[in-house]
Amino acid sequence: MKIEAVDFFYLTMPIIRDIGDGSQDALLVRIQAGGHEGWGECEASPLVTMAAWNCPMSHSACKPVSASVLGHSLNDPKDIARIHQLVRKQSLDLLQTDHLLSGIDIALWDLMGKKLETPVYRLLGYNQAFPKLPYASQLFGDTPQQTLEKAKAVRANHYRAAKFGWGPYGQGTVEQDHDHVHAAREGLGPDGILLIDAGTVWQDDVEAASQRLKALQECRVTWLEEPFISAALGAYRQLSLKSISVKLAGGEGCHQAHQAFNMMDYAGLGYIQIDTGRVGGISPAFQVAQRAAKQNVNYVNHTFTSYLALSASIQPYAGLESHQICEYPVEATTLARKLTQTSIVPDEDGMITVPEAPGLGLAIDPETIDRYRQEVQIKVNNRIAFESTRR
Amino acid sequence: MKIEAVDFFYLTMPIIRDIGDGSQDALLVRIQAGGHEGWGECEASPLVTMAAWNCPMSHSACKPVSASVLGHSLNDPKDIARIHQLVRKQSLDLLQTDHLLSGIDIALWDLMGKKLETPVYRLLGYNQAFPKLPYASQLFGDTPQQTLEKAKAVRANHYRAAKFGWGPYGQGTVEQDHDHVHAAREGLGPDGILLIDAGTVWQDDVEAASQRLKALQECRVTWLEEPFISAALGAYRQLSLKSISVKLAGGEGCHQAHQAFNMMDYAGLGYIQIDTGRVGGISPAFQVAQRAAKQNVNYVNHTFTSYLALSASIQPYAGLESHQICEYPVEATTLARKLTQTSIVPDEDGMITVPEAPGLGLAIDPETIDRYRQEVQIKVNNRIAFESTRR
Repeated sequence: MKIEAVDFFYLTMPIIRDIGDGSQDALLVRIQAGGHEGWGECEASPLVTMAAWNCPMSHSACKPVSASVLGHSLNDPKDIARIHQLVRKQSLDLLQTDHLLSGIDIALWDLMGKKLETPVYRLLGYNQAFPKLPYASQLFGDTPQQTLEKAKAVRANHYRAAKFGWGPYGQGTVEQDHDHVHAAREGLGPDGILLIDAGTVWQDDVEAASQRLKALQECRVTWLEEPFISAALGAYRQLSLKSISVKLAGGEGCHQAHQAFNMMDYAGLGYIQIDTGRVGGISPAFQVAQRAAKQNVNYVNHTFTSYLALSASIQPYAGLESHQICEYPVEATTLARKLTQTSIVPDEDGMITVPEAPGLGLAIDPETIDRYRQEVQIKVNNRIAFESTRR
Repeated sequence: MKIEAVDFFYLTMPIIRDIGDGSQDALLVRIQAGGHEGWGECEASPLVTMAAWNCPMSHSACKPVSASVLGHSLNDPKDIARIHQLVRKQSLDLLQTDHLLSGIDIALWDLMGKKLETPVYRLLGYNQAFPKLPYASQLFGDTPQQTLEKAKAVRANHYRAAKFGWGPYGQGTVEQDHDHVHAAREGLGPDGILLIDAGTVWQDDVEAASQRLKALQECRVTWLEEPFISAALGAYRQLSLKSISVKLAGGEGCHQAHQAFNMMDYAGLGYIQIDTGRVGGISPAFQVAQRAAKQNVNYVNHTFTSYLALSASIQPYAGLESHQICEYPVEATTLARKLTQTSIVPDEDGMITVPEAPGLGLAIDPETIDRYRQEVQIKVNNRIAFESTRR
């Protein structure tokens, strides 16, 4: 079969707040081929990503991504790998490519799974999808008291693990950060797994990050996430030599598998966190998971949006039994929660598992698309270069 | 003073050919503040980069780049650093940001130089701009015979160094590549510096690249450029251990200083090649140049477009006397050659030097803008999100 149509849906909440909540908008990709359809989601700026689909060619290595996708053959998973090669070659110098390719790759796997009536994780070669332990992923409160209350709520909802991130953390004094982390531990109780996310706040400043280690160690924090930007490999390595019981986590900013390989090889990470909506999709995420398993680094998904994104982010390591921790968004917007007709929710043991249905195992809710859809039109010299799909 | 206006000009040749010639279009950035104006050029997809300027906010770390630039203070070079910090924070998750920031940073330095009546290299702290040895940068011919003729022409034009890249190289057999490299050496004569550019053709395949080393060694090639994608640090390192007399060069794909630091730290490079139009502008390029000088890696500009881009790419290492080789486009389109009112051309000794005039030392030709300008309009829900400037 051939890839007949690729459509984009830009959805957004009526008001976007200036907070670190990535679920306030969404870019959905729908791909149609041979009577089947697949859906994917880019964790990216929707407008800029749409522009990368059909921008004018600049030269042989800066073509629109559509040139390597639309009309191309799609018969088995090897064709997805071939499309990747072609996109990487023809859109090498178009920086936004990787975020766009992510949604396309996810939609291609979903479509392939539906065609072959198989869940994606089986197409990847896993025989079984093991249950994952979801951690409640949320923002710090504005004050330590608010963080305490949020942590108590997480505990009351029976989560065995929780992550607090962004918000005030790293923006004020060492003591303020100390108070937030202690409040989180107090609210979560002594047994909960506590994770802290600094959201790249120290860029590459090892000294600033080091000053926070004492409070993290006192509160038995399992990982400190993204003290630095993804490419600051040397800074990560230096901090990892000081952090002792607190492991470092990072990688959500990686937009290619090789960047994640570099973090595993050189940054001293305990946990590599991959967002399939940014790294180029399920294909490179699976490569990272396989290599993490060999190198004794823990693979973890990065997901802060919909259940579709969650399924796509778990598939690459669904079959790795010992890589058990899983990011689970608990504060997502209505848009993100209603994007699919069904949800992925913790079972009686507090564990989650990817659906057994074909592909990603979730159906998109057309009413959500209608309700939140934004129309985009891009013209170059009065000719339409891109127009968003209405339905 | 405040940054009052930022305007974008998307210029393109009437026909874009499917070849590796990045000078076929251009995205110019003009910034106005306090009665001065500065110009920069992004080495990027113009349409996608324009979309990143004023896309709707997705969340606190995925804002349009305009939010961190327009209306902000600009009084001395420290303000440029502050704008960088803000852009990195507020547009962290917008992948295209770095290519857009490149043109903005260059325009800010040009403006600052004009305001202070000083060439940019002096604002960076250099006392002198040393002459650079330009290498004629061009594509391989389609056949070895064509490559031979191109190399003869370069020699006839008195260039002491030449680079051949892209085109058929690495696409066919080892023997075909052998013939092209030998043809280049024959045409250039025994004394010319010969450089070969593989344009990432082997992705991360060390074995495929290794098979080409013999011909490169036979022809006394100074560097093999971009055998792999920038992030394939391990592949670079492995090849560097085999390449003996042929040094590896790479880095043009880096879109942040840290990526270039990683290539210098882990990839075994002899030459780090930075395009100020991609790496985030003159500011990060200067950081890379300073570190290269300390680490005994040769810094080289990457430039395949206009004299404006050439000036912006040389300024970061203008004062490093021993880093002498310089990429010099000899096959650029009319658009690129006519973008500025004056050119940077080799002197009697075959050397080039950045202009001594303030800023980047070149004036834009308004007729070229008028002749090649494309109009862009981006609408979201029938509201104009971006519109290109007419003049």
